[in-house]
Amino acid sequence: MAVTDLLTFDNAVFKAYTFWSGVLLLKLLAMSVLTALHRFKTRTFANPEDCMSKKDKVTYDNPYVERVRRAHLNDLENILPFFVTGFFYVLTNPSAFLAINLFRLVAAARILHTLVYAVFIIPQPARALSFFAAYLATAYMAFQVVIFAL
Amino acid sequence: MAVTDLLTFDNAVFKAYTFWSGVLLLKLLAMSVLTALHRFKTRTFANPEDCMSKKDKVTYDNPYVERVRRAHLNDLENILPFFVTGFFYVLTNPSAFLAINLFRLVAAARILHTLVYAVFIIPQPARALSFFAAYLATAYMAFQVVIFAL
Amino acid sequence: MAVTDLLTFDNAVFKAYTFWSGVLLLKLLAMSVLTALHRFKTRTFANPEDCMSKKDKVTYDNPYVERVRRAHLNDLENILPFFVTGFFYVLTNPSAFLAINLFRLVAAARILHTLVYAVFIIPQPARALSFFAAYLATAYMAFQVVIFAL
Repeated sequence: MAVTDLLTFDNAVFKAYTFWSGVLLLKLLAMSVLTALHRFKTRTFANPEDCMSKKDKVTYDNPYVERVRRAHLNDLENILPFFVTGFFYVLTNPSAFLAINLFRLVAAARILHTLVYAVFIIPQPARALSFFAAYLATAYMAFQVVIFAL
Repeated sequence: MAVTDLLTFDNAVFKAYTFWSGVLLLKLLAMSVLTALHRFKTRTFANPEDCMSKKDKVTYDNPYVERVRRAHLNDLENILPFFVTGFFYVLTNPSAFLAINLFRLVAAARILHTLVYAVFIIPQPARALSFFAAYLATAYMAFQVVIFAL
Repeated sequence: MAVTDLLTFDNAVFKAYTFWSGVLLLKLLAMSVLTALHRFKTRTFANPEDCMSKKDKVTYDNPYVERVRRAHLNDLENILPFFVTGFFYVLTNPSAFLAINLFRLVAAARILHTLVYAVFIIPQPARALSFFAAYLATAYMAFQVVIFAL
């Protein structure tokens, strides 16, 4: 199948990939705001020039701030590779049903991951399950890409 | 509009996206060299096997090294999502004037962000302003992508 | 040359870029498993909710866990920019011989980097050499992209 028929919004797989990637991009960007909220609430900053009053301090061990930062780093480790994997996967011309549901799964799982990790803090295995759902879906797609381009 | 008319250097929007992405890729890669310079200057390393003389030590709290590393991580959190967002945004066939100036804005703001964070260390709100300029431009583009692919 | 002739698996350069990117995506994803293995082996976790027995503890200074995490972060700093750079580089219609060997070099160097950094821990300059091989290849490609899109 030609790339012109795949990389187009007429292709439901590419459209779903773009839509859910856009949603995940906004979710990823939201982590910076969440970090800033916790920094201002706990008056905990990463740089001396960020402290505006004597009550503000530079520390790297505030549990609320660091939790959001771990969730953010986990996003970089998983959502950014998904963007790349999903793009290649669209080009392998996969089954639309499977591909669209894999994209939905990754997006839902990563949003859930943030919620249980850094917003409501729900006991395990909530985070482990949401992590592995997105992880295994991404790894499956990456594996298909390698097979296809072999 | 067909993808063949969008993903080509004949499209001024895609050309500008590629050019400014290339500039930001080089800027991003430069952070590793900047980190290494500070590590050698302060004899501060992250691993025992990196220490070559008795004066070299393993620490994770040198303020110069850690500042560059925070700027680098902030780049990963913002420049990498921009690459993905910008690509999708090109495919929404945006106004050339708006798109090209958004790409210029993101590139200029992220270069400025590095300069005021990790090279010259200028007081706030220099870093906050450069951060938000690129952040809001990227979030706007991501939002347009979601709307377009809805 | 038209994008339809470049972004297709009929183009040996794009095929090699996709294949080696897929391999590096799987390698990158493997870092999470490697981190988890070390966490369980050393009973060292990042969050209170991850501790399942009294022997499990929350610490951020276990040398084995942190070494894998540094290798993982280094991957984010170098492999993710390579994905973006390689994509643009394919679109510059480079010499197939040069491009395919650059992709092979980056993939081999980054796999070696992980092995000597976080699996077998081999003295320097093993890690420095594998780092710079991939780094310089990526920087060269990014530079070519900037020139091409100027």
